[in-house]
Amino acid sequence: MRFGKRETLCNLFRIDLPIIQAGMVWTAGAKLAAAAANQGVLGVLGAGSMSPDLLRHHIRKAQSLTQRSLAVNIPLLYHQTEQQIDCALAEGIGIFITSAGSPKTYTRRLKDAGCLVVHVVSSPMLAKKCEDAGVDAIVAEGFEAGGHNGRDELTTLVLIPEIVRAVKIPVIAAGGIASGAAIAAVFALGAHGPQIGTRFAITQESSLHVAFKQAVVDATPDATMLCMKKLVPVRVLKNAFYTQIKTLEDQGASVEDLKSMLGKGRAKKGMFEGDLTDGELEIGQVSGVIEDIPSVAELIARLKKEYAETLQELAG
Amino acid sequence: MRFGKRETLCNLFRIDLPIIQAGMVWTAGAKLAAAAANQGVLGVLGAGSMSPDLLRHHIRKAQSLTQRSLAVNIPLLYHQTEQQIDCALAEGIGIFITSAGSPKTYTRRLKDAGCLVVHVVSSPMLAKKCEDAGVDAIVAEGFEAGGHNGRDELTTLVLIPEIVRAVKIPVIAAGGIASGAAIAAVFALGAHGPQIGTRFAITQESSLHVAFKQAVVDATPDATMLCMKKLVPVRVLKNAFYTQIKTLEDQGASVEDLKSMLGKGRAKKGMFEGDLTDGELEIGQVSGVIEDIPSVAELIARLKKEYAETLQELAG
Repeated sequence: MRFGKRETLCNLFRIDLPIIQAGMVWTAGAKLAAAAANQGVLGVLGAGSMSPDLLRHHIRKAQSLTQRSLAVNIPLLYHQTEQQIDCALAEGIGIFITSAGSPKTYTRRLKDAGCLVVHVVSSPMLAKKCEDAGVDAIVAEGFEAGGHNGRDELTTLVLIPEIVRAVKIPVIAAGGIASGAAIAAVFALGAHGPQIGTRFAITQESSLHVAFKQAVVDATPDATMLCMKKLVPVRVLKNAFYTQIKTLEDQGASVEDLKSMLGKGRAKKGMFEGDLTDGELEIGQVSGVIEDIPSVAELIARLKKEYAETLQELAG
Repeated sequence: MRFGKRETLCNLFRIDLPIIQAGMVWTAGAKLAAAAANQGVLGVLGAGSMSPDLLRHHIRKAQSLTQRSLAVNIPLLYHQTEQQIDCALAEGIGIFITSAGSPKTYTRRLKDAGCLVVHVVSSPMLAKKCEDAGVDAIVAEGFEAGGHNGRDELTTLVLIPEIVRAVKIPVIAAGGIASGAAIAAVFALGAHGPQIGTRFAITQESSLHVAFKQAVVDATPDATMLCMKKLVPVRVLKNAFYTQIKTLEDQGASVEDLKSMLGKGRAKKGMFEGDLTDGELEIGQVSGVIEDIPSVAELIARLKKEYAETLQELAG
């Protein structure tokens, strides 16, 4: 039965390995998505940090670099969502991963256009709503994940079995997965496969600024923390900007204080432009175990090897 | 190799199954520890909520109920630590699980007395310190665990591989483990076995007040939260007392404000006396998946069955 589970995502997305490369902002452009797709995993473009024009450019470029399945991740919280969806549909994208917002808003339209829809959730209650809205699969994202995060702080280990029990559609586990051993762990918990973010973010092909990649390689296990809980919780690499937020929060800062502190363009400044002092450095808790910047091909070979070894060791 | 790992704890503690029943305050008395030991797992008394005299009573009672290995969990942060250790040594306890405080303080003395010493940690750095202090094994406890918790908020999924890599001594995974599937997951991550808390807390034999046990059975996935981070972080079931703390914390409460709010005897009031309004209800994030109050024997049979099924499914 669980073997069948491991084939589910391959059949659904027409991929060779049941692994999703997360469509992260300022990280997942054409180079990363195409490299991932060419290794047989689902390559995903992160539209959250792209204007519709830039998204079109990345879709076309990625399509020129691979013949395999490509998806687009669209957070439903920016003002250009509608145009991003129009653009991706016009360019022939058939798999949409949506996050934030309600799964009801766009699922019907995307399904009517013949697309697959995956929605990202952080609680069993929202997973059930997704299923009711006709979503094809769930990404269940734990507290250890980088970037924007759920309010209930459910960890991947606790969240996955709860969501697997709550819905009948396939469940993709996200948050804290950067090794073949962790992939085996989430299969054991009942997931149909992993979505991997931070580990793909720290590869040669990701769009992150090289200074940020190196900072993650150098990071200690305690290097990230969830903050901005009163606004929208976000996990970041600790830096001077984080310390300022933390100080404000410890003093009981209001939502307005935090908004004005955050300002505009902080994530771009840190993640894309490499300002490690004043930028917002969104990244996962697994930063502490990441020690190199491999190519996507090297990474996938490593994950496959570690996964096979883990299963063998578990079998005794 | 990993099969060897699964035998390590059995050989170390002379138990049949590589599982530790957590020695939780107001929860793990003679009945729970002896029942666990009689099922072949390591039964642990929670000395943290016991005077030396009460501890002596529980040790003797537990010894009268089982011939198998028994351990004592002693948090190194109360004024009676010295007397608790004297008492446990005098009563023939040979396995000590210490938590909080420095592993340097008592390890030498306990080792000289011929005992095994296990220390609870929440970061790789502290794990290394334990190894250097001569500790025999580590309990690595993730963010999802109930009760007192680490400051770095590392989840079990992220923490276990980091600690396995940091030390050569056996690593026991704790936090978020309440099923055979989760046991398989932590073995996949490289742990030598699980320490199980919340799931043992909600059994017939635990000392928790029945009203609290029922509240955990009724709990939804979002029912717990980590609070008191400025003081000593603690994961509790949300109730009126929690809401008061949360309100204070959101307003930027100081350590002193929190101390005076906490007062004395809150955990006893909630966990042992069943005051679900004003008590401090320490419990793990897995509360959301707990649906019954089995006997320890029923629980162990279930965990073994689920674990075997999970391995079989993973093997395809």
